[in-house]
Amino acid sequence: MAKLDTRLYFITDSTFCDEEEFFARVTAALRGGATLIQLREKERSSREYLTLAERLHTITQSFGVPLIIDDRVDIALASGAEGVHLGQSDLPIDRARQICGSRMIIGATAKTVPQALEAYKNGADYLGVGAIYPTTTKVKTVLTSVDTLADICRAVPIPVNAIGGLNKDNIDILSGVPIAGICAVSAIMKADDPEKAARELFTAAAEKLGIGQAV
Amino acid sequence: MAKLDTRLYFITDSTFCDEEEFFARVTAALRGGATLIQLREKERSSREYLTLAERLHTITQSFGVPLIIDDRVDIALASGAEGVHLGQSDLPIDRARQICGSRMIIGATAKTVPQALEAYKNGADYLGVGAIYPTTTKVKTVLTSVDTLADICRAVPIPVNAIGGLNKDNIDILSGVPIAGICAVSAIMKADDPEKAARELFTAAAEKLGIGQAV
Repeated sequence: MAKLDTRLYFITDSTFCDEEEFFARVTAALRGGATLIQLREKERSSREYLTLAERLHTITQSFGVPLIIDDRVDIALASGAEGVHLGQSDLPIDRARQICGSRMIIGATAKTVPQALEAYKNGADYLGVGAIYPTTTKVKTVLTSVDTLADICRAVPIPVNAIGGLNKDNIDILSGVPIAGICAVSAIMKADDPEKAARELFTAAAEKLGIGQAV
Repeated sequence: MAKLDTRLYFITDSTFCDEEEFFARVTAALRGGATLIQLREKERSSREYLTLAERLHTITQSFGVPLIIDDRVDIALASGAEGVHLGQSDLPIDRARQICGSRMIIGATAKTVPQALEAYKNGADYLGVGAIYPTTTKVKTVLTSVDTLADICRAVPIPVNAIGGLNKDNIDILSGVPIAGICAVSAIMKADDPEKAARELFTAAAEKLGIGQAV
């Protein structure tokens, strides 16, 4: 399995810019210190998703950062990506593990302690937990309290990341919670300067939450 | 690889009825002689698609008929289905073959001789060619002429099925074309009596086009 470092987990969004800008922004985020990248596509055909994944994978490989594919185990396998992220409406983790083998990183989404325990039991390698704040990325999402996030961190021995509307100015709320890292979408993707935004978020997570060191 | 018999290839549509009626209709089609079943879902989550595929697979297995999953190699692998069907916007056939192995049936869609040759070269086990008639299932589809269908049949050594708006009363147009079978969606799915509709289509294909024998 590829080395898993979830300190600054950048989840992409290709819906608001053209393809060249998309790749430029993800590259900038990697320069700024993103330690893990997720490609998340909801509207594209399988072939478009694969094409995007392959091109992104050449970029992430050049930074030595694993690429995680949202939802689609087949796209992860075909693109050579290092992992797949499975939400509650995606393939069950144990079923995905059967078809992708032990080397694939499998991440899962959990909103409650029972969901987190279930995901861990079924073989998840990390968890994304939230939304901590309301987010424009997933408008219908249910919020998860910081207390529940803390309970999940204590309940499972795998890395737990906080997700949902997080940015450098509002992560103080997570102080004292033993998360492994921060997930970010808009805070980096839509920033005027994605490299700077990634670096500042990484630094803020380090200084305010004690998560790793700026690179 | 599961035995491939494309004589009456029934492609399902679950969008216009509830789940119980859906399974009842597919079961009826199998009783009526469908030799191959494709599950085609465009709007469902991965988990819903898998759940539907698994339940359908127990039914198709009881008839000894292979189940083909549209588009999603991961759903095919996870459900234990015998095959996957790949359109021009789905995963490339050779990439799919790499991740699903030699035992999986891979079908492809082709509208032209070059597409058919490419699909065959990349490892397709059968082809669906059309649309022969306009269809309500794929409103934006491009029609394929009967002459092109005949050219494709002669160009590749794998089974070629005609698809698109076909029913027992309009398949005469395919007379003399060496197709291996007929694909049907609405003609069976939306029939008052799907079992009777399947049986009549099978019989018409046998009598008018010389395709196999009624079962």
